[in-house]
Amino acid sequence: MKLSEKKLCGKTVYDGKILKLEVDTVELPDGATAQRECVRHSGGAAVLCVEGGKVLLVRQFRYLYGKELYEIPAGKLDGGEEPAQAAARELKEETGMTAKLSPYLKIYPTPGYTDEVIHIYIAEDCKRVGGQSLDDGEFLEPVYKPVKEVLALIESGEITDAKTVAAIYKYVSETRI
Amino acid sequence: MKLSEKKLCGKTVYDGKILKLEVDTVELPDGATAQRECVRHSGGAAVLCVEGGKVLLVRQFRYLYGKELYEIPAGKLDGGEEPAQAAARELKEETGMTAKLSPYLKIYPTPGYTDEVIHIYIAEDCKRVGGQSLDDGEFLEPVYKPVKEVLALIESGEITDAKTVAAIYKYVSETRI
Repeated sequence: MKLSEKKLCGKTVYDGKILKLEVDTVELPDGATAQRECVRHSGGAAVLCVEGGKVLLVRQFRYLYGKELYEIPAGKLDGGEEPAQAAARELKEETGMTAKLSPYLKIYPTPGYTDEVIHIYIAEDCKRVGGQSLDDGEFLEPVYKPVKEVLALIESGEITDAKTVAAIYKYVSETRI
Repeated sequence: MKLSEKKLCGKTVYDGKILKLEVDTVELPDGATAQRECVRHSGGAAVLCVEGGKVLLVRQFRYLYGKELYEIPAGKLDGGEEPAQAAARELKEETGMTAKLSPYLKIYPTPGYTDEVIHIYIAEDCKRVGGQSLDDGEFLEPVYKPVKEVLALIESGEITDAKTVAAIYKYVSETRI
């Protein structure tokens, strides 16, 4: 069965700093029409850095959940930026580190309403080269946590960020920790 | 360091079928103000069902990416619905199966701009009790794929859905497949 949907028309209802919201009318496989609510996003890049059995995380207040979350260092691609370049930039800005980065995992966070792609890299040869250099309005703290503690915090529902959870379980499944 | 942000005011810029978009003005930890673009979502529920080394997936066209994706069965919580109830309902609607469901993993898909929580359950004792009963405008096909094939498709970037990737790697990390 062919499952595709064809755009008939669309309108932009909001164009903001980190996302654009479009509402499109589409033709369904059976010829009927439906509306699709589309969050357009430039994409994200993240870095899994594990050294000596410890994971580099950042503690950050996330307004949408009204609490602090632990996540691997990450951020949004700036206009036209390559994912690897964004990953290296975010790692340096958020933690003051540089590293050799290799592609590790690509995820679509929630495909029902956003087109974001999150590109996750794995770090080797991490070096501290300076302090943080955060964007205006960005507040976060880097912290190292043992892989086993991170797993326990995922199990207890205290670490929940999808890119962090996916990357950590991939790492554990491959390294047999 | 205390990292919280306090809402000063907000407005709803869109209120749709699957999401609401609010733009809030917040006070930052240093007293400055910033805007937060907030996608409000009722939450999702998903089911990891592995039987005889095969994972139950659904193949579905995702308009936001313009292609078909493979994902574990999942859907949105209807108003006031409990996550476990939504997981059972979606499993039945999308695949015609019922199962004993246990909480498995909770993820926040992309905490920078949505408040969605995805509740993932693991299935035991799956039974086919009928055919699909899809919502209007929903088209998808259930398919079983071996765990090893799913891992290969994640590695090659063909399976990308975050809830699916996280659940599969958790499963593999725990079962040592």
